[in-house]
Amino acid sequence: MRKICVFVGSRANYSSIKSVMHHLKNNSKIELQVVLGSSAVLDRFGKVEDLIKKDGFKIDSKFYNNIEGENPITMSKSTGLGIIEMTMIIDNLDPEIVIVVGDRFEMMSIAIATVYTNRILVHTMGGEVTGTIDESIRHAITKFAHIHFPSNEDAKNRIIKLGEDPKFVFNFGCPRIDLVKEELRKNSVEFLEKNFNKNKGVGTQINFKEKFLLVSQHPVTTEFGKNRIHINETLEALNILKLPTIMLWPNIDAGSDEISKAIRSFREKNNCYWLSIYKNLPIAHYIHLMNTTSCLIGNSSSGIREGEFIGTPVVNIGSRQNLRHRGDNVIDVEYKKDNILKAIEDQIQINKYDSKVLYGNGNAGEKISKLLSDIKLPQIQKIINY
Amino acid sequence: MRKICVFVGSRANYSSIKSVMHHLKNNSKIELQVVLGSSAVLDRFGKVEDLIKKDGFKIDSKFYNNIEGENPITMSKSTGLGIIEMTMIIDNLDPEIVIVVGDRFEMMSIAIATVYTNRILVHTMGGEVTGTIDESIRHAITKFAHIHFPSNEDAKNRIIKLGEDPKFVFNFGCPRIDLVKEELRKNSVEFLEKNFNKNKGVGTQINFKEKFLLVSQHPVTTEFGKNRIHINETLEALNILKLPTIMLWPNIDAGSDEISKAIRSFREKNNCYWLSIYKNLPIAHYIHLMNTTSCLIGNSSSGIREGEFIGTPVVNIGSRQNLRHRGDNVIDVEYKKDNILKAIEDQIQINKYDSKVLYGNGNAGEKISKLLSDIKLPQIQKIINY
Amino acid sequence: MRKICVFVGSRANYSSIKSVMHHLKNNSKIELQVVLGSSAVLDRFGKVEDLIKKDGFKIDSKFYNNIEGENPITMSKSTGLGIIEMTMIIDNLDPEIVIVVGDRFEMMSIAIATVYTNRILVHTMGGEVTGTIDESIRHAITKFAHIHFPSNEDAKNRIIKLGEDPKFVFNFGCPRIDLVKEELRKNSVEFLEKNFNKNKGVGTQINFKEKFLLVSQHPVTTEFGKNRIHINETLEALNILKLPTIMLWPNIDAGSDEISKAIRSFREKNNCYWLSIYKNLPIAHYIHLMNTTSCLIGNSSSGIREGEFIGTPVVNIGSRQNLRHRGDNVIDVEYKKDNILKAIEDQIQINKYDSKVLYGNGNAGEKISKLLSDIKLPQIQKIINY
Amino acid sequence: MRKICVFVGSRANYSSIKSVMHHLKNNSKIELQVVLGSSAVLDRFGKVEDLIKKDGFKIDSKFYNNIEGENPITMSKSTGLGIIEMTMIIDNLDPEIVIVVGDRFEMMSIAIATVYTNRILVHTMGGEVTGTIDESIRHAITKFAHIHFPSNEDAKNRIIKLGEDPKFVFNFGCPRIDLVKEELRKNSVEFLEKNFNKNKGVGTQINFKEKFLLVSQHPVTTEFGKNRIHINETLEALNILKLPTIMLWPNIDAGSDEISKAIRSFREKNNCYWLSIYKNLPIAHYIHLMNTTSCLIGNSSSGIREGEFIGTPVVNIGSRQNLRHRGDNVIDVEYKKDNILKAIEDQIQINKYDSKVLYGNGNAGEKISKLLSDIKLPQIQKIINY
Repeated sequence: MRKICVFVGSRANYSSIKSVMHHLKNNSKIELQVVLGSSAVLDRFGKVEDLIKKDGFKIDSKFYNNIEGENPITMSKSTGLGIIEMTMIIDNLDPEIVIVVGDRFEMMSIAIATVYTNRILVHTMGGEVTGTIDESIRHAITKFAHIHFPSNEDAKNRIIKLGEDPKFVFNFGCPRIDLVKEELRKNSVEFLEKNFNKNKGVGTQINFKEKFLLVSQHPVTTEFGKNRIHINETLEALNILKLPTIMLWPNIDAGSDEISKAIRSFREKNNCYWLSIYKNLPIAHYIHLMNTTSCLIGNSSSGIREGEFIGTPVVNIGSRQNLRHRGDNVIDVEYKKDNILKAIEDQIQINKYDSKVLYGNGNAGEKISKLLSDIKLPQIQKIINY
Repeated sequence: MRKICVFVGSRANYSSIKSVMHHLKNNSKIELQVVLGSSAVLDRFGKVEDLIKKDGFKIDSKFYNNIEGENPITMSKSTGLGIIEMTMIIDNLDPEIVIVVGDRFEMMSIAIATVYTNRILVHTMGGEVTGTIDESIRHAITKFAHIHFPSNEDAKNRIIKLGEDPKFVFNFGCPRIDLVKEELRKNSVEFLEKNFNKNKGVGTQINFKEKFLLVSQHPVTTEFGKNRIHINETLEALNILKLPTIMLWPNIDAGSDEISKAIRSFREKNNCYWLSIYKNLPIAHYIHLMNTTSCLIGNSSSGIREGEFIGTPVVNIGSRQNLRHRGDNVIDVEYKKDNILKAIEDQIQINKYDSKVLYGNGNAGEKISKLLSDIKLPQIQKIINY
Repeated sequence: MRKICVFVGSRANYSSIKSVMHHLKNNSKIELQVVLGSSAVLDRFGKVEDLIKKDGFKIDSKFYNNIEGENPITMSKSTGLGIIEMTMIIDNLDPEIVIVVGDRFEMMSIAIATVYTNRILVHTMGGEVTGTIDESIRHAITKFAHIHFPSNEDAKNRIIKLGEDPKFVFNFGCPRIDLVKEELRKNSVEFLEKNFNKNKGVGTQINFKEKFLLVSQHPVTTEFGKNRIHINETLEALNILKLPTIMLWPNIDAGSDEISKAIRSFREKNNCYWLSIYKNLPIAHYIHLMNTTSCLIGNSSSGIREGEFIGTPVVNIGSRQNLRHRGDNVIDVEYKKDNILKAIEDQIQINKYDSKVLYGNGNAGEKISKLLSDIKLPQIQKIINY
Repeated sequence: MRKICVFVGSRANYSSIKSVMHHLKNNSKIELQVVLGSSAVLDRFGKVEDLIKKDGFKIDSKFYNNIEGENPITMSKSTGLGIIEMTMIIDNLDPEIVIVVGDRFEMMSIAIATVYTNRILVHTMGGEVTGTIDESIRHAITKFAHIHFPSNEDAKNRIIKLGEDPKFVFNFGCPRIDLVKEELRKNSVEFLEKNFNKNKGVGTQINFKEKFLLVSQHPVTTEFGKNRIHINETLEALNILKLPTIMLWPNIDAGSDEISKAIRSFREKNNCYWLSIYKNLPIAHYIHLMNTTSCLIGNSSSGIREGEFIGTPVVNIGSRQNLRHRGDNVIDVEYKKDNILKAIEDQIQINKYDSKVLYGNGNAGEKISKLLSDIKLPQIQKIINY
């Protein structure tokens, strides 16, 4: 049996790999190992650990590596500590293959610990183009990875241009779409009325048959120091519309504190009866909200990725998703109140865009699992293809 | 004044960047900061610190990050600790630009600490193709670096193919050649007779007017566990020739212990009157030895790089320099006693190859310094070029 | 000049050593070095860094070492990381003497980094007896320290019983009392009316001429998992009294999250119009509140230490201050709503206790500074006294 | 079953706890966990790992934490890294009790990781008095430990004077004596002739029926910088006697390099035909050498501890064993060639001293194991006894 270790570093991360984990677990030729670290072990980002256990997975090891501060200094040091911890875990669990997802800072810890100890590194969601430090991290991980599962054809071609061996680059689509497809068999308004309103935080009750907005805006690490100003532009635009709005707290990236403070301060100064803020939404809730909202606003990749499959109208703000391969459902705007307002007004006129399959059609997890159990593994020693 | 920080992690590293440091120091628009770590702070790899001070540089900070064990596990953990330490140093010294050289494991620590904290990363010697984990590290650093100084045209083209902005990729040649050119103004035999024989370790005195061999064979990290067998093939070939032989102890990479033990064990079992082993040779000594030896044997990049400029006959063994851009002076062989023996016998028939300038003509340091003081720096936020 | 390094790890820490720092800075025979770490560098515990700079001190170095999680695992790992960081700082700043305060977990990092690198360790506030892991840490630091400045005679005698050389154990009182004495030259009600009401957080305005309560209850690390239940007992007692109440958020110890959540949850379920909660109070504000409140409730050492000097009526809850040397102003109770309520009711009948000088009379900083500049330092090599 | 974790950090460490481990393993009420770290995982200090496995123990986890440099800076940083690693291991293995031995720097890592995570800490060999930083470390660990197994009555009394609860302080003798007693059932000369001469390193063959010397001199960390001078005094005294001499390489403490270099340099300058140097001797070999040598010279605690039980004549040099409780078999001298020479000459006149049982009579391991399986464990929260 092949020992394959999946690292989960955050809640978003888990959504991106859950479908793969599910199929690896049920694959008789594979022994699945699950390792948690970074924000996935922290209570304040939601009990991802509990979620994973509830979904039937066994956690083989976990580690705390996030150093407090939420600034570039601690982001870097947390990565160093992550390498130290993950190396020891690899030494103990002895996997043949380690899977990392995407481009968050902690993923570099896992990539280095894996390849420096002579294991096969598998990378999902590589080859895309975006903003922030994630852009550099993603391509650096590609240069370490032995097997690649990009989420779309554009990304696949870019990985090959980066000198990777085409024999080991596979576009099976994005495993997040697997979850979406599964979830959307249910009726979204019914689901939300039954599940969401009882779980919701402080704020007004949402009527899901009426127009409402969904906001998810995260810090941009390379714009550290300006995130406060940027989120304020969004808040001011929303405060003009005063439509019922569901907003998510920002993730743990450097700059997170700037955004949290700005939100708190804005609420103190304005009567935000229209605004409900949530720390962590279950994935299913988020999918149904995307399926129901009049417009998703912010800089989450979900607008581009799941949004295209679902057909969600999206207003994408600023540089974070720069150049990510996108469909017609997205309007891009700068960090300017007026532009944001105008774009939202345009999008809420549209009910839904047509579903597209740029990011796959919902069977990525199954295909990845099958391939990893059957493929003849590449040499540990990689060589650039040109 | 631009604050530019140069990291030196080993003796070999220092040779590769010394000429650049020299010109940065004398550049009135630049404040040079020097940071030492990894094997550069360890006595057993030669007092690189003393050497650097003697050369007139001030050391701004240093750190110990190498974890004992010399295996893949400790190589990975040392990298993690290096990130933690270098991050704190960057926080204190606050450089605008950090320069890293090449592809050794500790360089990844510096690259990550630099870009995660939003500084400009400059990379020398990128874009080459070789074996071992260095191959992956080199290209991953390229994906983090903002400005590139490859040492030859082939490497420059490869960096551009990797999606880097051609405006920030400069082939000024290899700064190591600067040292060679400077040094070869002296007469090598005279220099060695005067300086080398008094510094030499245990073993026979060398007559530099007669044929003698030079050996430098380092561990290949991706062949961890086989380095002992590999070095033995070399030793057995040498033991047939019994020509006077100057050998260097291996560097600190994972696998170093395997080679050291094999050498010790070989000496205990054989009468190696022909063999002298040295821990650390001053750079100047090594250059004159390369200029005088009948053949350089092993897997050091110096055979390919400086060797081509000097015209040294080289027998390159195994995968470590795989695919590195090379001239006619190099014969490549596998880890096989007979092949090694045959190649050496061929090379010692040739006195010297013609000098070539594939790796520059000796003014790299000056050009790099001038460019770094004058150039308009790129955006912190990198974006792939396709 | 003697180079003396003071480490500040938290806001409370700074209050305990500020008077010493002030006198060291003005001592011409001493070069003061200031190093910050742990929660002193974190925004969410108040900008201690800004405070220190505003008070006229230069910060020589700072480091982030707190690993997120706020549980026993991360408390231990943060201590390990603190050693790594502080060791490098000591290597750079090269102090002859390092001063640590008290018994918080991060102090062990400083103690180890200091004595392992052969420096003189000075310890203030040793020799006391309390609960939590701090009890063990305090005495372990005593066994590492070369010079001791306990804050009272009882503690001094205990340090000597622990085998320390009486020649290097000095009771000059507690430096916190220095701040109190200085501050109480002002009229407290006037000060608070002028300064506090404008700085206060969400909640009702306080009339300082009327009865009001002050609450400061921190987690007990050795009771991890039970802190939520414990704080609830206090909150329920307060909710019966409904007197105007000023409460502080808990410190960063393992268990902090349990208390924060309990408070938030309690506020959501009850109409706590009587309750104002503060993240960080300036020291001066806290002193005047202690001088004005009808009763200080919780488990802060300030109730025992400054409380006795000021004469504040105190209700001390649970095990955290177990056995700390205390005066008549303190009533000790268990974690039981009824007992807490009864004790508060008794204390608010009393206006003020008489001031006592168990913990010194306000010149500790001056005496410590003078002694450290003049004393012949002990041998680096300590030997137990029996 | 009680889960009890034993940490082994070095070869010497293993000798001190092996007998306890043996009895814990065979105790049906106990689940034994074995963790290795520090020099116990390094090849250059002998394959302690292989030794432990050969003795029938299963290793549950191991970690590399020794940072290269062998100076006070790296000793301190290695301790920090040890805390980080051991904390994660404790989180995974979840022992109720952790046992640490003695006073080496790495033991502080284990002690802190254990008590900060709310486990019961058991300490053997506490309460003794010696030189070096070990003196402070030992007593600091005592202040963290819940149950104490000192190796003699003097140490037991000192632990109680340190404020520990007498109910949890037990003098069952030293577990090292268990090994000695077991081993000395064999005839030492026969054993050595059969086993030692075939294992010996470079140097002359030893005739165990004639007079020969045994030397074991380790660095004194608090005398860092002077260890070279100190070992030279010993070497010069030995070079006058020119008796067959078996010497051990020094341990890994800061200063180790100074001693190694001094020995190498001395051998290069002198014809040391009388000197054989060994990296690691099996414990059994060392015991029989102690039983046969005319005199044991240096600063190893074995001279005092096992030496008294065996009756070995010992010349103890310098401050390392300062004040350790000792018998008549030891002559103490300073670091002076003449004094060392004189003391050796006196000792080799004596054949053997009478055996004493100051450090127990050979059943410590059995008693410790039994007590740990049956005792009602103390509270996690320690309180000083006065």
